[in-house]
Amino acid sequence: MKENTAIPYKIYLEESEMPKAWYNVRADMKKKPAPLVNPGTGKPMTAAELEAVFCADLVKQELDNDTREFPIPDDIRNFYKMYRPSPLVRAYCLEEKLGTPAHIYYKFEGNNTSGSHKLNSAIAQAYYAKKQGLKGITTETGAGQWGTALSMASAYLDLDLIVYMVKVSYEQKPFRREVMRTYGSRVIASPSDTTNVGRKILEEFPGTGGSLGCAISEAVEYAVTHEGYRYVLGSVLNQVLLHQSVIGLETKAALDKYGIKADTIIGCAGGGSNLGGLIAPFMGQKLRGEADYDIVAVEPASCPSFTRGTYAYDFCDTGKICPLAKMYTLGSSFMPSPIHAGGLRYHGMSPILSELFDQKQMRAISVEQTEVFKAAQMFARIEGILPAPESSHAIKAAIDEALKCKETGEAKNIVFGLTGTGYFDMVAYGQFNDGKMSDFIPSDADIAKSIAQLPKV
Amino acid sequence: MKENTAIPYKIYLEESEMPKAWYNVRADMKKKPAPLVNPGTGKPMTAAELEAVFCADLVKQELDNDTREFPIPDDIRNFYKMYRPSPLVRAYCLEEKLGTPAHIYYKFEGNNTSGSHKLNSAIAQAYYAKKQGLKGITTETGAGQWGTALSMASAYLDLDLIVYMVKVSYEQKPFRREVMRTYGSRVIASPSDTTNVGRKILEEFPGTGGSLGCAISEAVEYAVTHEGYRYVLGSVLNQVLLHQSVIGLETKAALDKYGIKADTIIGCAGGGSNLGGLIAPFMGQKLRGEADYDIVAVEPASCPSFTRGTYAYDFCDTGKICPLAKMYTLGSSFMPSPIHAGGLRYHGMSPILSELFDQKQMRAISVEQTEVFKAAQMFARIEGILPAPESSHAIKAAIDEALKCKETGEAKNIVFGLTGTGYFDMVAYGQFNDGKMSDFIPSDADIAKSIAQLPKV
Repeated sequence: MKENTAIPYKIYLEESEMPKAWYNVRADMKKKPAPLVNPGTGKPMTAAELEAVFCADLVKQELDNDTREFPIPDDIRNFYKMYRPSPLVRAYCLEEKLGTPAHIYYKFEGNNTSGSHKLNSAIAQAYYAKKQGLKGITTETGAGQWGTALSMASAYLDLDLIVYMVKVSYEQKPFRREVMRTYGSRVIASPSDTTNVGRKILEEFPGTGGSLGCAISEAVEYAVTHEGYRYVLGSVLNQVLLHQSVIGLETKAALDKYGIKADTIIGCAGGGSNLGGLIAPFMGQKLRGEADYDIVAVEPASCPSFTRGTYAYDFCDTGKICPLAKMYTLGSSFMPSPIHAGGLRYHGMSPILSELFDQKQMRAISVEQTEVFKAAQMFARIEGILPAPESSHAIKAAIDEALKCKETGEAKNIVFGLTGTGYFDMVAYGQFNDGKMSDFIPSDADIAKSIAQLPKV
Repeated sequence: MKENTAIPYKIYLEESEMPKAWYNVRADMKKKPAPLVNPGTGKPMTAAELEAVFCADLVKQELDNDTREFPIPDDIRNFYKMYRPSPLVRAYCLEEKLGTPAHIYYKFEGNNTSGSHKLNSAIAQAYYAKKQGLKGITTETGAGQWGTALSMASAYLDLDLIVYMVKVSYEQKPFRREVMRTYGSRVIASPSDTTNVGRKILEEFPGTGGSLGCAISEAVEYAVTHEGYRYVLGSVLNQVLLHQSVIGLETKAALDKYGIKADTIIGCAGGGSNLGGLIAPFMGQKLRGEADYDIVAVEPASCPSFTRGTYAYDFCDTGKICPLAKMYTLGSSFMPSPIHAGGLRYHGMSPILSELFDQKQMRAISVEQTEVFKAAQMFARIEGILPAPESSHAIKAAIDEALKCKETGEAKNIVFGLTGTGYFDMVAYGQFNDGKMSDFIPSDADIAKSIAQLPKV
């Protein structure tokens, strides 16, 4: 066991040190991310168009590329105090096991019932819906982390929540469903007979297990056809990255408190909500020329939007009812393999991160599923925390980076985002424990085929 | 939302403020708890007899009624730093919702992968086994929290662990089983063909789902018949309460830091590991005449050892192979109803707590399952944390106490132990959500029948 030093195992900020404002990285980008585009008109979406679907305050945040700081309302700050600050953990035991001179830190977002960072944006979106006097909100959920987070936020604010849960998940993940129900949400297996689009799909494909694209379509339809409802989304959007900046701001404050300068910052990347939040203030420094960081996005080899996708306008949803976003994408018709990191199975990537990646402000790597679970198991045994499959992509990359330092002798400060826990992913761990896990890598032809179907803008 | 005051939502101790020694409440008891007795000889168990089953250092802790403080070895303190200090949370939101003048605090032990306080003793017991140069340890698990905690501790110390898991749980709780396997434990469905007692039971009752008593018998048999193995237990024993005193010591240090004097201290009680740990330093003050506290044990109405049991020598296990302990008991042949708080389904109670209860140093109440889940759901929605069914017994009692304060206008400081999370209890929550949960209250005749079978000592 390595001797304890002046840096504790866990750095907790005081309440008074918690961020008072979210940071909008777009304010420091010279070239801004491309705007959302109306697929009908081919023109940028207006505030009025977006407000039919989203809450008004959130639309303002979505469209504002210039305001650097958005004050966090008191009610949200008080909610944050119930589960934040999250600890920045020094991985002393992992360092010792690897025999690396590197110092490894991870920002752990799993210490709340939703089990992930998703709650940071869920409470913000629910708050603005409540503030607007809405009756309720609708959303879709696949793996269930976002739905759970939004259920917690809605219960707290006494806001009605309707969650369209992909039918196959609804049936195979009854525990996630029950958590949402315990918080008072109405969870509907999608496709359902509660919407036109759902009824149409059920008629066309009786017995289908549903898809995320279909669930989005139903959630949006419900919101726009019911007085007092709006639709909310847990990733990809600019507003979500804004709220998630609380992760990076806390991380930076904790490092600054102990005079630590990060060298490498690593995050898993699906739609970009965690990575965008974690790196925000560091990227800001980099864009302003104040500091340099090696920023790394880690994606699954099965769904490699950064590493094998193309930078173009595409639909955000497979149902093609949402606005077009310019992003690194595999094409909205790309069908990712059924890997267990459901939160990373997204064909595209946040427009902000896509633009930053295109500007070479960050790099990206992809890793295979079985390697990810090996890293996850090692981490669990050494550091105690059983990580989510999504988060474990960052663990794998951080371990590899620390092993490189072992070769070179560099004492780098490696910081990674541990987005959540794997308590609801034990089917995947069971498969891994039984040696029955496999890897999925799409062929060039598969990717070329879906990219060929990109919309013309 | 109540205005924030000087007391933060979560009080975290600094690493330097964490306890350096466990506190042994027996040292302050004038009348000591009764010793374990050898059922064969009728005489107190000697150290040599106990060392055949348990690790030597743990036997010393078990038998020592006089040493007030046991220094926590550095390796255990470092392990504690990975998931401790646990937060003492001020339940601002719950207070506001109840409209009570009381201040409610809870010590939350669920922020680790085992999901409960069990890890505090698991790492200690695994450490002493490692120190003794043993190859491995054996234990039994019912609901799986203890088995998970011990798996984490054993993986960390690279110690072999064999867990006999009650067969019906093994089959119905595959997720708990997979967590243990991920940490490298060998999990065996009990009864099994790996022991004589297991084979005998399988022959007699083919197709049985097993029982905790049978699993204990198998775990003990494996330990005593294999070179380099010992058996460990997660509750009831004096040594376990000693290790768990870390909960109470941290709680008291956090309260002292803000000048808060607890009035009422509430904990759920099964075998007594959590309650005994939480109250230890407060009870010490009470026994030394330095302060007074209203200390409350909350047990399920279905398994009411304090409130309807008798104080007598009894077997600790239904298999009747363990030593006799003097305790409040319903009789080791009492079959508790299948309630969902598996950790509270124990026929007896820790000898230390039993003696303190007999001395009227604390009081006990019992609550029914559906009321407990109502409190759990309310708590989850208001405070965010989805509690374990066991912990929710304390929540129910704390809410009732706070509502009494609302009537009387007293601004009491109520402190309760939130032992863990309910993420692996969603079958129970599902039953509750569907309105299909029922209560079980044993008849006087049932209890009289099992108490009539107590051993004669």
